[in-house]
Amino acid sequence: MLPIAIDAMGGDRGPAEIVAGARRAAAELGVPLLLVGRPEELGDTGGIEVLPATEVIEMTDDVASGVRRKKDASVVRAAEAVRDGRASAMVSAGNTGAAMGSALLRMGRLPGVTRPAIATPLPVPGSTPTVLLDAGANAECTAEMLVQFAQMGAAFAAGRYGIEHPRTGLLSIGEEAGKGTGVVKEANAALQKAEVWAGSGGTFVGNVEGRDLLTDRVDVVVTDGFTGNVVLKTLEGAMTFMRDAIFKVMMSTPEAIEASQVLVPLLMPLVREMDPDSYGGALLLGVDGVCIISHGASSADAVFNAVGVAKDMVDGGLVDRLRQSVKV
Amino acid sequence: MLPIAIDAMGGDRGPAEIVAGARRAAAELGVPLLLVGRPEELGDTGGIEVLPATEVIEMTDDVASGVRRKKDASVVRAAEAVRDGRASAMVSAGNTGAAMGSALLRMGRLPGVTRPAIATPLPVPGSTPTVLLDAGANAECTAEMLVQFAQMGAAFAAGRYGIEHPRTGLLSIGEEAGKGTGVVKEANAALQKAEVWAGSGGTFVGNVEGRDLLTDRVDVVVTDGFTGNVVLKTLEGAMTFMRDAIFKVMMSTPEAIEASQVLVPLLMPLVREMDPDSYGGALLLGVDGVCIISHGASSADAVFNAVGVAKDMVDGGLVDRLRQSVKV
Repeated sequence: MLPIAIDAMGGDRGPAEIVAGARRAAAELGVPLLLVGRPEELGDTGGIEVLPATEVIEMTDDVASGVRRKKDASVVRAAEAVRDGRASAMVSAGNTGAAMGSALLRMGRLPGVTRPAIATPLPVPGSTPTVLLDAGANAECTAEMLVQFAQMGAAFAAGRYGIEHPRTGLLSIGEEAGKGTGVVKEANAALQKAEVWAGSGGTFVGNVEGRDLLTDRVDVVVTDGFTGNVVLKTLEGAMTFMRDAIFKVMMSTPEAIEASQVLVPLLMPLVREMDPDSYGGALLLGVDGVCIISHGASSADAVFNAVGVAKDMVDGGLVDRLRQSVKV
Repeated sequence: MLPIAIDAMGGDRGPAEIVAGARRAAAELGVPLLLVGRPEELGDTGGIEVLPATEVIEMTDDVASGVRRKKDASVVRAAEAVRDGRASAMVSAGNTGAAMGSALLRMGRLPGVTRPAIATPLPVPGSTPTVLLDAGANAECTAEMLVQFAQMGAAFAAGRYGIEHPRTGLLSIGEEAGKGTGVVKEANAALQKAEVWAGSGGTFVGNVEGRDLLTDRVDVVVTDGFTGNVVLKTLEGAMTFMRDAIFKVMMSTPEAIEASQVLVPLLMPLVREMDPDSYGGALLLGVDGVCIISHGASSADAVFNAVGVAKDMVDGGLVDRLRQSVKV
């Protein structure tokens, strides 16, 4: 297996955290890695090869001009390594826009894909995750783009989670086909056609609603990048809110503190399962290569998990599955 | 005070539940009420006056034709009672579209309002609710409509919660003014202008994100009815998910069950505060009258709370505040 290129300069916590995650991944997953960044800032890589890159696209940089002007940026070099056959996948925890832009400009799109989409797996305890896409790459989408997202989402869920016929839903404001915006209605009509699903193995369950996301009703939920991103952040906010509110109650009286000592350890698996760091980040689907976009605040754990996802994507031939799914 | 008209035929649980809530409201809130529906199906109204209406718009009815064809529908008659000065407000727990349509067709719009919007208060423990609008009336919105929603939302928050200068945010996928769809960017630019806020007393805090909804960062969040409805149902789904997941853990071992006996009573205020039935339903803002739309699965409690909100709206002169807020 070709090494997985890791943008070592991305991430709010700095290179040390990324390198720590990479070292753990190299040791435990046995995958070859390639750390891309300023060698002098990486510290001891534990023998992991370094691909030098002198520039960094910061979280605050303008994405479009950053990717074009900073040709020696770590994230750009990571994408190039995939394009040039030097790496099998890229992982970045930096500026999401820069990772998308680099992957798109350096790897290019798969044939038939109008725009790549960000797919985010939402954890559903006791079941496979629900894949939400587009989680933010394209604020405005045509019905045609939504159809491609549905195809790619189904192909991804099939390959990554072994779901034979992923149930794919279109996010709307009612289950009836006539509910939603003009674009959503048009997409609904197009997704009813059997030929749309020939390449991915997915099935269309019609419109779904926000309340279906964390359930086993559906495997893939398709929406535009504006709605998808708002939904994702709403879920994050709701989880944080509930966690904090419950914690406050647990600390409110001596009896509650005592009772919590029994319950908190039992609640930890749920807390861990719902932690964005544990599910390995989002994926950019539709580019000609594997691109994993980890949370900006990524911990070493998140980097470790992202490498795991990248490895699975490569091993499972995900890019070929995606190519097949949107075949024109 | 003129009576508050209650659509007695709306709601999944049937007229008995509505009448029960109405009787409690009459007794405890001391407001005059008017139950609208089929007298023979209402049972003992405890002396509350009945306005006979022979038809019902069902949950499954097509809204547009239902409101036009069923001229003697309870929800239509309730809206007419407000228009004709026989009632001060209407409350419906039936088909949301039918309530909106009846209010719009019978009461008409306030001057300067392109389309009314549904405002839903989201509970924020320890603070005033966050008012989310449009929560589903208009799947597609222009920037001009979003500006009107912002004005009406601020006027509502000021009048209902006594917030002097409601902080109003525009829901988007990043805090920077340049983030979002074309319509959102246009609305952001328009909302920066001071004159927009002259009539409502609101202030613009710029773009906000999904994670801000359940916090004290903002008092009013404006978005199109597609995104707003998806967000609302996502929140409902997340709350249900968390409640069920935590309950499962609490019942998982004998020790957990024992510990829960201490914690559950302490958690109940939070559970009650987050229950949609307790915050009195949504409001249709922008029609020339008070229209409260309660949850379809409304309990007697929800009807009671909805009457309380209607009373506050009438007492607080909300319609005049709204009229002032969008003054052209």
